[in-house]
Amino acid sequence: MHRDDLKDLPGPELRRRARTGALRSHNAGLGDGYVKANVVILPAEHAFDFMRFCQRNPQPCPLLEVTDVGSPAVRFVAEDGDLRTDVPRYRVYERGELVDEPTDLLDRWTDDLVGFLLGCSGTFDSTLLANGVPLRYVEAGTSPPVYKTSIECVPAGRFRGPLVVSMRPMPADKVVRAVQVTSRFPMSHGAPVHVGDPRQIGIDDLAAVDYGEPCVVRPGDVPVFWACGVTPEAAAVAAQLDLFITHKSSHMFVGDRLTEETSLL
Amino acid sequence: MHRDDLKDLPGPELRRRARTGALRSHNAGLGDGYVKANVVILPAEHAFDFMRFCQRNPQPCPLLEVTDVGSPAVRFVAEDGDLRTDVPRYRVYERGELVDEPTDLLDRWTDDLVGFLLGCSGTFDSTLLANGVPLRYVEAGTSPPVYKTSIECVPAGRFRGPLVVSMRPMPADKVVRAVQVTSRFPMSHGAPVHVGDPRQIGIDDLAAVDYGEPCVVRPGDVPVFWACGVTPEAAAVAAQLDLFITHKSSHMFVGDRLTEETSLL
Repeated sequence: MHRDDLKDLPGPELRRRARTGALRSHNAGLGDGYVKANVVILPAEHAFDFMRFCQRNPQPCPLLEVTDVGSPAVRFVAEDGDLRTDVPRYRVYERGELVDEPTDLLDRWTDDLVGFLLGCSGTFDSTLLANGVPLRYVEAGTSPPVYKTSIECVPAGRFRGPLVVSMRPMPADKVVRAVQVTSRFPMSHGAPVHVGDPRQIGIDDLAAVDYGEPCVVRPGDVPVFWACGVTPEAAAVAAQLDLFITHKSSHMFVGDRLTEETSLL
Repeated sequence: MHRDDLKDLPGPELRRRARTGALRSHNAGLGDGYVKANVVILPAEHAFDFMRFCQRNPQPCPLLEVTDVGSPAVRFVAEDGDLRTDVPRYRVYERGELVDEPTDLLDRWTDDLVGFLLGCSGTFDSTLLANGVPLRYVEAGTSPPVYKTSIECVPAGRFRGPLVVSMRPMPADKVVRAVQVTSRFPMSHGAPVHVGDPRQIGIDDLAAVDYGEPCVVRPGDVPVFWACGVTPEAAAVAAQLDLFITHKSSHMFVGDRLTEETSLL
């Protein structure tokens, strides 16, 4: 099936295809309008610490759903989601080392695992575009530039680390609208964390990305920074847990809920 | 000191007086503009379940802050809060039975307790009044009517129970504004959960309150219902934990933060 044909599929159908193995590629840009979630799975002994880390750092770690201990069932983001099968591709870390990238967790799921679904910025770009905010990296066909900042997250237990941000340069006269429309979606990282001079948040060179790809900044553009879902993932990898599982980058859990349903206003 | 003199005190000073024992009475109506929080303290073994209960039921249980295991320190709602001393009066439950109403927890705090600070509707009434929404129970000088509903909260572990709501009757032409202004404050229960016919949420008789006092409903008034902080307290009492501590009704934790700082827009 061509990628263009996938574009029109609704969220539940995309999830079904991930479950059956029919869709193992990334789903960035697909399921527009449906909630997409970053996934973090870890042993119960660390789950309360990780949940407090998310509560204390809500912009990088917006909590959509937390499963019961041992249960892979997703009930809020999707009606009958299953964290063992519904992500197109997973990453498995042991003591901070990537050891596998399976397409399901049927053999790995144990009764002491807890799953977290965290909001991502997946559908937030289409909201910006719909509001007349140009996106330079979309124009260029590249992935967004992502940076570690000098802002430390509020730690909880073993989880700590820098706030990681994505950057979207835009004409100065679009900045206010960009703040307004993203503020409505706290479950998709919400409002920007910083507008303007990158050095104020510890980024010396916009060309030197930590993740993603550098992005053209046009004359008159202002860099605008949003909290990024890499933040909790990096904190969980750095915690060197015996086991930590996440989705592979851009291979997200696609929900039944519409992004609009998660807005507060 | 007369109650009227207390009215002008800022939040941090009200908290200091609770800490030193100078203010042991209720603080409803005081510290206007400052975040006030309901308090739940319970053993660590139940803390992750209770936190999931809150995350799954965010309107009755808006999570402002969760302490580290064994730590009474509050760092977000207040800069240097202490859950052992900063509440004017506590309620201590053992296996679901009220056993004490102390003014501090210095002798009771142990290194396996976890504290939760939950947003309350304390300053939300002044927002409604400032927007021209009349409050019948304020006019009458009574406490708001509160009801159990037929809506079940999403359970987590041992925590379950009905959604409990407060009711504010208002002229029909104020309902839209009331929805708008409370939607801005998800940390104070946010938007209403129901507008209109009480029977649709299992309330057969508005005169038969479960908590608080009945309230005059004037001709043309529409009843508007908001999620209430009694919900998590009732769920925690019903769970019959070996130990569960909360604030005494209307004896809240007063923060340094301004309510406006907790709005999302």
